[in-house]
Amino acid sequence: MKKQTISPGCIGIVGLGLIGGSLGLDLQSVGREVHGLVHRTATANQAKKRGLAQVISTDPKILSNCELVIMALPIAQLLEPPSELLEAIPKEAVVTDVGSIKDPIVKVWQKLHPRFIGSHPMAGTTQNGVNAGQRGLFRNRPWVSTPNSHTDKDAIEIIGKLAKQIESNWIKADALEHDKAVALISHLPVLVSAALLKMLGDNPESNIRELAALLASSGFADTTRVGGGNPELGASMASSNTYELLKALDAYKQSLNQLENAINLGKWNLLKEELSKTKLLRENIF
Amino acid sequence: MKKQTISPGCIGIVGLGLIGGSLGLDLQSVGREVHGLVHRTATANQAKKRGLAQVISTDPKILSNCELVIMALPIAQLLEPPSELLEAIPKEAVVTDVGSIKDPIVKVWQKLHPRFIGSHPMAGTTQNGVNAGQRGLFRNRPWVSTPNSHTDKDAIEIIGKLAKQIESNWIKADALEHDKAVALISHLPVLVSAALLKMLGDNPESNIRELAALLASSGFADTTRVGGGNPELGASMASSNTYELLKALDAYKQSLNQLENAINLGKWNLLKEELSKTKLLRENIF
Repeated sequence: MKKQTISPGCIGIVGLGLIGGSLGLDLQSVGREVHGLVHRTATANQAKKRGLAQVISTDPKILSNCELVIMALPIAQLLEPPSELLEAIPKEAVVTDVGSIKDPIVKVWQKLHPRFIGSHPMAGTTQNGVNAGQRGLFRNRPWVSTPNSHTDKDAIEIIGKLAKQIESNWIKADALEHDKAVALISHLPVLVSAALLKMLGDNPESNIRELAALLASSGFADTTRVGGGNPELGASMASSNTYELLKALDAYKQSLNQLENAINLGKWNLLKEELSKTKLLRENIF
Repeated sequence: MKKQTISPGCIGIVGLGLIGGSLGLDLQSVGREVHGLVHRTATANQAKKRGLAQVISTDPKILSNCELVIMALPIAQLLEPPSELLEAIPKEAVVTDVGSIKDPIVKVWQKLHPRFIGSHPMAGTTQNGVNAGQRGLFRNRPWVSTPNSHTDKDAIEIIGKLAKQIESNWIKADALEHDKAVALISHLPVLVSAALLKMLGDNPESNIRELAALLASSGFADTTRVGGGNPELGASMASSNTYELLKALDAYKQSLNQLENAINLGKWNLLKEELSKTKLLRENIF
């Protein structure tokens, strides 16, 4: 393992899955010293093989010299962090997380650490685990931070600089507004997409199920991609952002019912109008 | 225009949009003489420029020597074909269509032409019109035919051979079963996907709408792709396959409600199980 000491202190990454591993690769490539903490020895060995950090261990002590600690852990662990992790994070370090919900995590961590700032680098692939990390995952992707009046001003600057160094788009948002927005564009689509697969799987006519599977093409593949993703992640999004997700689901069902009404009444021009609006909206977003 | 006479008679294509134009290019490349009939002179000129057929005209008479006629027209025109088209199609020619619904089209055309066979080469892009046609669009994609007891046996063979020549996967299915299957994997996903965009567009909080649009990434892009497609096509699928689409929508809403119930009751293990099943189902399909 090559050791670089360009920066005064190391960056600790807790968890070297898709997000943590990708951050480890990118941060090393911009000259930072990265210490990666993982749970299992087997993971540590594979992470070493992949060079996800310069120092990799299952011993929380490797965080002791870090000026910055990024917690790339599942949401459940972010909400109930193990005490040995809390003890190992230096009090003077800037601390952030990468969780896909922010308000509940910020509420927990602002009580636990004086220099915590919630953040969410938004990138994903269908992969997870220690083999999933890849270079450039965050390039041109939003990295949302959710500072509030209690947040250490320097911490905001430090994480922001880091995001920019790896060519991520640094965005500031209110934690609750972040959670509302991701319910709409990330958490609800998982349900909407999974329900499409579930409907097909639950169809009682086996010949129709088989023909449908045979005929399914890129349209169905695209619409069902997120519904066929990581079940653990999908369930943890739902359990941690329940209120906003259910609100979004209500609004979604209203939209779907309005389209259904147009069809039920044979109002084809109205349906065409609605589909013209959705086409335009999508063109404006992407 | 190069003229080839490898085949005894020409293939007529009525309509040179995405499907008709792509067929024109592929069929020429396997040595067939293609005559393309279009509605407007401007379209004819552009189609000639693109070489979508060897002979291109707005005059239905160009079909008179064709041993095979493929109607690549919008569903509405297939259901109510203009009389000058009917008169121009030779009685001895094999006739097929490319419509994305089959039962209503087969019912109409079996009364109109003795050698009609319904078919549906399943391929698509986000493009349409005379500039959309492209080579190889049907390669390794299903080309479904829906013969029944009234269908001319030779007609089945002739279209099947054609499909294989352009490397499409030739499939036979019952027309109604085709319509059920495409309701599930093609027509319903348009609604499900459009409703997601509509929900976002109808959100009353402009700051949330803007943040959501800013944070939307590949997951949202994929899930909304077909809902942001051609409004005309989406509406015509709904108007021509209404019964099966509404039935599929009912089943979909049940699936969505079951996922919602799991969330409402905080049954996270059940939700995880459901998402594991949808993940497995998708892996089996693609």
